Amino acid sequence: MQRYFIEKDNWYDDKIQIVADDYHHIVHVMRMEEGDTLIANRHDGQSAISRIKRIHETVVEAIVEKWLHEESESPINITIVQGLPKGDKWELILQKGTELGAAHFIPFQADRSVVKWDHKKLKKKLPRWQKIVKEASEQAHRTKIPQVDSVITMTELINESVSYDFKFFAYEEATREYKSFKLHNYFSKIQEGQSVIICIGPEGGFSDKEANDLKNEGFQAIRLGPRILRTETAPLFVLANLSYYFEEMR
Amino acid sequence: MQRYFIEKDNWYDDKIQIVADDYHHIVHVMRMEEGDTLIANRHDGQSAISRIKRIHETVVEAIVEKWLHEESESPINITIVQGLPKGDKWELILQKGTELGAAHFIPFQADRSVVKWDHKKLKKKLPRWQKIVKEASEQAHRTKIPQVDSVITMTELINESVSYDFKFFAYEEATREYKSFKLHNYFSKIQEGQSVIICIGPEGGFSDKEANDLKNEGFQAIRLGPRILRTETAPLFVLANLSYYFEEMR
Repeated sequence: MQRYFIEKDNWYDDKIQIVADDYHHIVHVMRMEEGDTLIANRHDGQSAISRIKRIHETVVEAIVEKWLHEESESPINITIVQGLPKGDKWELILQKGTELGAAHFIPFQADRSVVKWDHKKLKKKLPRWQKIVKEASEQAHRTKIPQVDSVITMTELINESVSYDFKFFAYEEATREYKSFKLHNYFSKIQEGQSVIICIGPEGGFSDKEANDLKNEGFQAIRLGPRILRTETAPLFVLANLSYYFEEMR
Repeated sequence: MQRYFIEKDNWYDDKIQIVADDYHHIVHVMRMEEGDTLIANRHDGQSAISRIKRIHETVVEAIVEKWLHEESESPINITIVQGLPKGDKWELILQKGTELGAAHFIPFQADRSVVKWDHKKLKKKLPRWQKIVKEASEQAHRTKIPQVDSVITMTELINESVSYDFKFFAYEEATREYKSFKLHNYFSKIQEGQSVIICIGPEGGFSDKEANDLKNEGFQAIRLGPRILRTETAPLFVLANLSYYFEEMR
């Protein structure tokens, strides 16, 4: 059944009004009619099978028939901070990272990021990124859409990080040096309901200064398995690992 | 240090001859000179720091200086069989799957594969696929290049599968139906040194007939986490999960 994320303001108890892109999708792409059903996702992560009551000129009216109790959200709250990569890799990370359960994505202007985005360019990009995570959430049967922020600096990253229970950064040197410090030593300390922020460098990795700044702010350097991963593979590995431990083992 | 996979026939005890693309890369891309060092990977997975002795017109001659004892290969032998996906997704799977430790990739002509490749087209594709996994192996610091096969049919898949210790297929129904049968119940039975074959459907998933055939041949239906993954995300999730359990937990 097709799934839609309906904004807070369009819920009136068990009645829903569906507008804009989702209206278009229901009426013109799916060609649904009055009496058809869909899954409506509410802002708080609840979802319900809902039946279309009326199709107006710009609004689909639907009514909740049955609340679902889906468990497709990770029991931990995961934020991916990614050094801006080249090309369309950031969009790949947003799409796949949403499938793999991330709650929040933040791009980071790293010392070695080849890409630099000015405010004008970013203003155009952000709605596109939000569309990617919304569509990926629908496809993956998630009940919450991840948050995507605009690009931040190291200072902003450090301010952002203070509220998290666990802070990590992927460090290529850690793959080589600390053979005995396996990832599970760190991940096994996380409890359900806690928040985790994980920083990944761009193609060239973190600069020495960035690595030192992160360490000084209490970020733990981690290795991501015994092989060297590309920047866009690293967040997917982390997310899949956390999913295995928190969703497929216990 | 730059890493090269040197074919069996070009090893003479501790002497190595490097030719063709790798010759070009050393001489014209890296602009190395006599006396410079590189890492040479031998067909059996051993690797060694080697020093360039002479650069001839079409051959670089190098000598092993120090054998390395790298542990970048998975302790289990993982084969990914993938229902042929659309576009360039197969190439994404080859690249990322190599980073994540797969030993063997086999594309499968599934009932719902939109793409059909004839022999002429395949003849062109296979060398390209092998180049992708070779380059990804170098980048990921692997010591063995994964094997890539040409496209197979269901009958060939079943013949291929008889030699494996564990046989799985990703089944969307398993994500929905068997909430209690988590992935770790299956993966925790695998021992180091054993072989695992994992089949992933194309975009539309496996047909009922394919799912039945696989079940009848002893393939276990597994879920890949609580969310619905795209066909190209599924093998990466499986590989990252096996890496976490076999490489980052024990």
